[in-house]
Amino acid sequence: MTTKADAIKPSSLSFQKKEMKEVKPAAEVRPWVDEDLQDDTEIRTKEEDDGDWVESGGEEELAHVPYLASRYPVEVMVQRSQDFYSLMNQRRSVRFISPEPVPRQVIDNVIRTAGTAPSGAHTEPWTFVVVSDPEVKHQIRLVVEEEEEVNYRQRMGDKWVSDLQRLRTNWVKQYLDEAPYLVLVFKQTYGVVDGGQKKTHYYNEISVSISCGLLLAALQNAGLVTVTTTPLNCGPQLRLLLRRPANEKLLMLLPVGYPAPDATVPDLTRKPLNDIMVHL
Amino acid sequence: MTTKADAIKPSSLSFQKKEMKEVKPAAEVRPWVDEDLQDDTEIRTKEEDDGDWVESGGEEELAHVPYLASRYPVEVMVQRSQDFYSLMNQRRSVRFISPEPVPRQVIDNVIRTAGTAPSGAHTEPWTFVVVSDPEVKHQIRLVVEEEEEVNYRQRMGDKWVSDLQRLRTNWVKQYLDEAPYLVLVFKQTYGVVDGGQKKTHYYNEISVSISCGLLLAALQNAGLVTVTTTPLNCGPQLRLLLRRPANEKLLMLLPVGYPAPDATVPDLTRKPLNDIMVHL
Repeated sequence: MTTKADAIKPSSLSFQKKEMKEVKPAAEVRPWVDEDLQDDTEIRTKEEDDGDWVESGGEEELAHVPYLASRYPVEVMVQRSQDFYSLMNQRRSVRFISPEPVPRQVIDNVIRTAGTAPSGAHTEPWTFVVVSDPEVKHQIRLVVEEEEEVNYRQRMGDKWVSDLQRLRTNWVKQYLDEAPYLVLVFKQTYGVVDGGQKKTHYYNEISVSISCGLLLAALQNAGLVTVTTTPLNCGPQLRLLLRRPANEKLLMLLPVGYPAPDATVPDLTRKPLNDIMVHL
Repeated sequence: MTTKADAIKPSSLSFQKKEMKEVKPAAEVRPWVDEDLQDDTEIRTKEEDDGDWVESGGEEELAHVPYLASRYPVEVMVQRSQDFYSLMNQRRSVRFISPEPVPRQVIDNVIRTAGTAPSGAHTEPWTFVVVSDPEVKHQIRLVVEEEEEVNYRQRMGDKWVSDLQRLRTNWVKQYLDEAPYLVLVFKQTYGVVDGGQKKTHYYNEISVSISCGLLLAALQNAGLVTVTTTPLNCGPQLRLLLRRPANEKLLMLLPVGYPAPDATVPDLTRKPLNDIMVHL
């Protein structure tokens, strides 16, 4: 089947519009934060709204083609849903990753899979920076560990110094050197149209997070592991290190590889269906 | 394999802490909006941070168990990654959904699959409200279409009246009546601990969006279709209609079913790998 695409349908946004005035002032004060904030809160101006609507309208006006789907007999469908759940339910966040090489072709396919996610107004607002260069991986580790250390120092205060050893195990991120690939997922908070004007990408964080869900499914399906981390405060430094443009913000960092032979995971359980689903 | 779980590792949050003061005032003004805003911006107080860190620490201190993974021969791994990409790449947002019934067992399995997503501090901050009751579905449709109409009226102004017919096709959402199931995805913005205190669920929107990515993958794997919609402004009304507690905010609404026999989709394409991936 040829490559197709789709878009999250935005709804009316009068609330966000009203909020804008209250948050805007922060912009001048701390640009970094404001850009992140603006992104997270999906703040938009009237003009941007019109632009977005025109864009959505544009999609509506595109030629429609028949949707051809594979349909399974009921018993096959039920079995497939059960098997997929069983496979996904074996996924865990693994922090012990083997340095053995992983076929690049597999990485390409899991990123392609992430790129099939729906997105607001079909903006496809994601950039996946895949790092295998040992030196770049180490630079990333230094940035992330520095942020983490600041964290723990702030939290522990004086206790920190005496507690050094125990704490190191918390902020030291060996997998950032050892994993054959680091996938840094950036959300594109706006695009630049022909006139050079910025066009806000609505719902970009939701869209990119959905694509990360598909990425996790693809990795699990291939027998690879990762741990979903959100080093938000490292974003600006890592963006500069990786030479990404200003409209891209780091959303997640995923070390990818085979699990280490002696990998362990916390002995946690998941909520049963009745705790997460309500049927009406 | 027994049910296991995992958690998104939060990073330091000093930026959000500083931002809090600037956004807080909005709270008194428009509670609804502020709660949504607060949620989206992941604002947190020092105390909440400590609580969160303690919780993360708690996870660290949990007993670890060996991680047992299925490992595939390289050629099998490559083929699996290719096949999964091909399957996911056939997914489209479909707005023409058949009213034919769908086995409830399949719906249960796709929701179970969504529940395997990682989440901040393993809060599993999602509630999936699955609606098959025709009357409730219709009530939901009325709320959503009312919001959409307000939208289009605002956008079109006077032109609107003369353009009624063309516009109706934009805001009328027949699939909300016709789809056998509507899945309303709520993010739990905070939990209530034993003392009755609120405990903010960090990264809840990112976590729930990731789980929606897994939900989309599970639906596609089963041969079902949906369209990812974000009726944010309908959230408060729909939350009350569905009797969800105040800590739950509507994030997405997904009509689920078989595609209609005559279903069509906009003739869009997706970005090629080189446009979404950068290798270093």
